Parts: sequence; structure tokens; C-alpha cells
Amino acid sequence: MALIVQKYGGTSVGTPERIQAVAEKVAAVRERGDQIIVVVSAMSGETNRLISLSKEINERPDPREMDVLVATGEQVTIALLSMALHKIGCPARSYTGGQVHILTDSAHSKARIQDIDDARVRADLEAGRVVVVAGFQGVDEHGNITTLGRGGSDTTAVAMAAALTADECQIFTDVDGVYTTDPRVEPKACRLEKITFEEMLEMASLGSKVLQIRAVEFAGKYNVPLRVLSSFEEGEGTLITFEDEGMEQAKISGIAFNRDEAKLTIRGVPDQPGVAYSILGPISGSNIEVDMIVQNISEDNTTDFTFTVHRNDYPKALELLKETAEIVGAREVDGDEGIVKISLVGVGMRSHAGIAATMFETLAKEGINIRMISTSEIKISVVVDEKYLELGVRSLHEAFNLAMEAAE
Amino acid sequence: MALIVQKYGGTSVGTPERIQAVAEKVAAVRERGDQIIVVVSAMSGETNRLISLSKEINERPDPREMDVLVATGEQVTIALLSMALHKIGCPARSYTGGQVHILTDSAHSKARIQDIDDARVRADLEAGRVVVVAGFQGVDEHGNITTLGRGGSDTTAVAMAAALTADECQIFTDVDGVYTTDPRVEPKACRLEKITFEEMLEMASLGSKVLQIRAVEFAGKYNVPLRVLSSFEEGEGTLITFEDEGMEQAKISGIAFNRDEAKLTIRGVPDQPGVAYSILGPISGSNIEVDMIVQNISEDNTTDFTFTVHRNDYPKALELLKETAEIVGAREVDGDEGIVKISLVGVGMRSHAGIAATMFETLAKEGINIRMISTSEIKISVVVDEKYLELGVRSLHEAFNLAMEAAE
Repeated sequence: MALIVQKYGGTSVGTPERIQAVAEKVAAVRERGDQIIVVVSAMSGETNRLISLSKEINERPDPREMDVLVATGEQVTIALLSMALHKIGCPARSYTGGQVHILTDSAHSKARIQDIDDARVRADLEAGRVVVVAGFQGVDEHGNITTLGRGGSDTTAVAMAAALTADECQIFTDVDGVYTTDPRVEPKACRLEKITFEEMLEMASLGSKVLQIRAVEFAGKYNVPLRVLSSFEEGEGTLITFEDEGMEQAKISGIAFNRDEAKLTIRGVPDQPGVAYSILGPISGSNIEVDMIVQNISEDNTTDFTFTVHRNDYPKALELLKETAEIVGAREVDGDEGIVKISLVGVGMRSHAGIAATMFETLAKEGINIRMISTSEIKISVVVDEKYLELGVRSLHEAFNLAMEAAE
Repeated sequence: MALIVQKYGGTSVGTPERIQAVAEKVAAVRERGDQIIVVVSAMSGETNRLISLSKEINERPDPREMDVLVATGEQVTIALLSMALHKIGCPARSYTGGQVHILTDSAHSKARIQDIDDARVRADLEAGRVVVVAGFQGVDEHGNITTLGRGGSDTTAVAMAAALTADECQIFTDVDGVYTTDPRVEPKACRLEKITFEEMLEMASLGSKVLQIRAVEFAGKYNVPLRVLSSFEEGEGTLITFEDEGMEQAKISGIAFNRDEAKLTIRGVPDQPGVAYSILGPISGSNIEVDMIVQNISEDNTTDFTFTVHRNDYPKALELLKETAEIVGAREVDGDEGIVKISLVGVGMRSHAGIAATMFETLAKEGINIRMISTSEIKISVVVDEKYLELGVRSLHEAFNLAMEAAE
């Protein structure tokens, strides 16, 4: 007998009919003898409806009251799903975040889970009941309702799975798994059967928005096997787990990319200790997040320093960098908004030489000029001109043989 | 400094604009230096919307899950009202029934309040905050969400007022007070400035549906002065309180009536101990509530027995009575659906003779035949033919001088 946690997002529970379809899936798990906890989001559209209501009353609503308001969304879903389960003869009981008791800190609208009391849930599971839990919400030590922020239902599911040492945490979404790259860019993109937590983190943060990063981190930290599946189609989805021998084969798992970056360069900075801090300090001081950073020493003992930021932050970052250039006595500052980042991700990289060489060769053959390179243990990222995005992704997909025969 | 509890029903908080209007009223109480707790219902239409959603999924939803579902209605209102108060610079904090902590028994959909923990609410009041409480809901000893049944927000308000020994509990509705009789029947009907708890109970149960009976009982039991006011018009409303000297003047407070009754009679029942039980036992055994009961002994040592039931229960009651008639050897059974009950209510009756005589004389003058009479300490009820309802109410209103000069 396994213990499964399933999570269904807003689209999956968007109408009474869809809630009934979810009930069928859930009841089937129990039928085959497994225990099951279901975590659900608000019905699609409901959270936005509540936010609009609040905006009509107060443009800048108090975060505590906002949490009281939006937490009703998931509470409606847990009641309806439990009723749907009863209808098909499946015993079930609903719990709000506060009832479970999912204890969080008091950071309203972006609270973090601190502890879960599993006693009531375990008692229900042992009595043969399906446990239906409201995602996205918890309660602080004073009994105030908190929320984990948008998409936080994934985190709730993983946290429940961790607290109860579930055998698997299944996240049902509107995609049927994690792909080697975005199928809209490369139609030959394939669903991955397995991917490691580290790879998934690199893929997610690079733009493959299948799962919340926090949920993946959480799952990795507590060793919860995580599976992404489609709510609407049959299939095995993608299992996100720890590295094993079988996974050693694949050098590269996927190709991620990001269109939302801009590049800034400061040239001819007199090289001395603390120069990196004097350049990046004012940037991060303005709450601008820096992604890639590259530094080279020139022959004349000055340094060139290049980094990327979110495209929205580009004008502000450029202004700050110009101020810094005057202070540190740099030669010039320039920037470029017309760039994209393409990244190869794969744990296989660790034990296979030549990945970087193959990547650079492939891009060179297509006449794609590389503007910036950054590497990590399981990732190589390059910055190229925006116009080369599709060509770059497709040629790399081909070069690393990511399209499986089955998919051709 | 007084402590006031105010309760606003669904119509009063039915739109964002109305919620803002309520916020203005509430803030004004705090401005003048009083402490205030506000109890609110779900926005009008919301509870029905939730019930319809549930019916789409399960015709006979589990009561526990139904409570989880409908309790979200008030939770939305408390958040929105708190936001509206913040908007106009009035500190406020919202509480669900579970957060207050309003402890109830576990009778889902009709739970009864057992205890209220006033610690958090008192701390907020002392800190100068308005406390906004979700009406109609509580939590049982296991932490399950419960509801008090429709209209239970009145009960929540009175219970909060009792627990915190408030100076007054103000119920805002769509009428501006309690009237001497229904103004749709007698246009000269007047708003009462004061009425006793006992009178209010008689008026309410007789059809003047201004307040929940349970709330009035509760207020009487815990000595909470209760005031009914209009959400939409200025005015003092009607204060429901204990009898005082000033109230001794009025013999009659009002005239209630009920169109929903039917009358049944069994004649020629051999008079012997236990005859009343043998007649009414089968009726109440079928969950039919009996209202008025009259019994007379005839000369031939048999008895005639007449009682009234809700008109919906008439066919079933008649069938049961015919069976009983055969068993006890009664002469005949008949019934009448075309009747109404008219009642004079007033604590002044206790110390004033002749009220009944004046009543019967007034009806006789108008040619209205009395079919049945029943009296209590503060009430005299008569059953008359349906067609005489309006004439009866108006002539009694006139005879007891209930139309005040101001209203003429």
C-alpha cells in the first residue's frame, strides 16, 4: 500500500464537471488500495474575482485581510471535491490550511511553511478516507490565516508529502510533463521520463514554468519523488527524483531559454580588490536581481565586467552603472536589450567531457555569434542575439539527439 | 465609553458600495469614542450561489462539507469590510467564527453556541481596533467548521454581546423597527420604540419575521439589550429589552397574525384519561407541530377536541386523525384550511382586565365569527375565517389605539 499526494490546479477544478472528473481519478487510487491526500487550488478565475472585489473597495488592501479573502477560494474547492467524492461512494474529509494544521511564519501573501501537524490526516487515512487539503494556505502561530503566494499549492502538496513521507507527490497540470525544450520553439521536443531535482531547478528558473521553484527545492530537500502529469490526458508524466544509474546515460536532459534578459557591460575598470562589489552593490541595493556575471582581465590591467538583468530592470540598471563608472573611473558603459539566453541542462555533463565544445561548434556552424558564456556543474548558458533563439535551440536539440525515435 | 455590537445582514453588505456605507457607519461609532464589534453575513446572493454549486455536484451534500463551503461567504465579507475600514483610516481586524473562537456543538448546519473566547477580541478593542466577526459560523471541539443555520448571524451578534457584556446589540435590517402590526395589512401601523423580549418572541413566532427567534431568546436569557434598526434609513429603531415602569402604560404592543394554519376537530370522543395523548401522539409522532389546542367536555360525557397545524401538514394530519377516530370510537372528524390566527400581544395584559372582552366585542361588532380562542399570560389568539383577516387586524388596531398621533 502506497501513500500518494496529488495536487490539482485551478484549471483542473475550474467547473463542477471537472471537479467530478478529478473525483473519479482520486477514487481510482483509493480503489486500488493506496492511501491518498489531495491538495487543490481555487477554481480558475475565483482568485481573480476576489482580488477584483477587494480592489473595488481598497486599492491597497491590508495583506492580512487579503489572505483572509483569497483563502476562501481553496476552501470552496475542498468542500466541493469532498462532496463529489461522497457522490461516487468514496469517503472523504476536507481540511483548510489552518485545520490541517499547516503552520507558517507571519509573512502574509508569501508565508513559508514551518511545520505540519499530521495527526488528524493520518487518522483519516487509516480510517480509509481520502483527505482533501486546501492548497496555498496556512495559519501563523497567532491563528491568523496566511497564504504562500500564487502557485503555492504545489508547495503545500510537497510539504504534505514530506510531512507524511508519501511515496510520491503528483502534480497535475495542463501539460503532460517536462519537455526537452519548449515544443512551441522545437516541435520535435520530447517529454522526459525522468529528470533530477537539480536539472528541474535549472529548467524552471530558466523559463520552463511547469512547477514552482520553491516546490522543487522543497521536494529535493525532503527527498519527495515528484511527478508532473496532465489532468486531461492519460500518461506517466515526468518523474523528478534523485540521480540514479539509469540516468547516467543521458548527457543532456533539456534546453532551456529565456527571452526576458538584457546585458550590461562596463569596460576599462581599474582592477583592484572590491571592484565587483562596487559595481554590483548599487544594482542589488535597488532590488535588481543579477543573473549571469562574467569578468575578464584586459592586458592594460583594467577589467571588463558584463552581467545580465531582467529586461524590465534594464533602464534603471544602466543608469546606476553609469553613475558607478564615473566613481570608479571606468572607460565606458554599454548595454543590449536584444539578447536571449540559451542553456543546456544535464547532470550527465559532470562525467562527460566535450559538451561545451559540441555546443560552441554547433552554434558556430549556424553562424550564431556567442556574446557571453557562463557555466555551472550541470548547465552551460550562452547569450546570443535575440534573432538566433529558434535556430539555436533547434540546432542544439538536434546535435544532442534529444528527439527520441518514438517521437519522430 | 460604551461597547456596541452591530450586525449587518446580507442585503446591507450586498455590494462593494454598501460595504463602504457600512464602514462609514461603523467608523462613526468609533469616532465618538465607543468600542465596536461588527458581525456580518455573506453578501446577498452569495450563500445561494454556493448552495447551487454544491447541488451541481451532489444533490445531498454532506452537512460537514456544506458548512465548510457556505462559511466562506461570511469570510469574504469580513475581509472586505476590514479593507473598507482601513481605507477610511479606521483600524480594524477580521475574525472567522473559528478564530474568535466561537465554540459550538457538532450539529452541522444547525449548531448551537457553547462558549466564546473573548481574549483576542478584547485585546483588539483595547488597542482601539474595530473587530469584524463572521456571523453564522463557529467551530466544534474537534476544529470542524460549523454553521448556526440561516439567519444565524443575529445569534452570533447576540452571543458576542453577551460574552463581552456589551451595552447594546444593534441588528441592522431592511426594516426600520418592529411595528404594531404588518403595515401591508394596516397602513396606520406604527413603529414601537420599545418592546419586551417576551412580546418580541410572541410577535416573531406569530409571523413578524424581523429577528431570529433564537437570537431573541438568547438576548433575553443573557440580558442583552437588543435594537432593530434600518441599514438604509436614519432612526432609533425598536429597542427590545426587559419590562420597566414606563412600559406599564401600554396594554397591547402589537397585533400579530398567521395565514399558514389549518384547523382540525374530532368530535364525540369518549372522555377518559389519556384521550389527549391518544389523539395528539400520532400527530407529533409524524413530526407535525401542533400550535393551538382547545378541548371542551360535552353534556353526553364525550369530548370535542380542536387543534391547529401548519397548512402544509393538514392533509397528513387529517388522515392520521381519521385513523385515530376509528380507534377511540369518536363520532366525527372535520377540518378547515380557510382560517387565520390573529393575536394581541402585550405584557400590559397581565395587569389590565377586560382586554379579552374588548377584543371579542370589537370582532363581534364587525360581524366576525370567532372559531377558536386560546390565551396565555401576554397573548390572546383567536381563529377566524380567512376573509376576515384584514378587517379583524384593522378594527383591533383601532380599538386598542395602536396608531399613535404622530403617525396619523
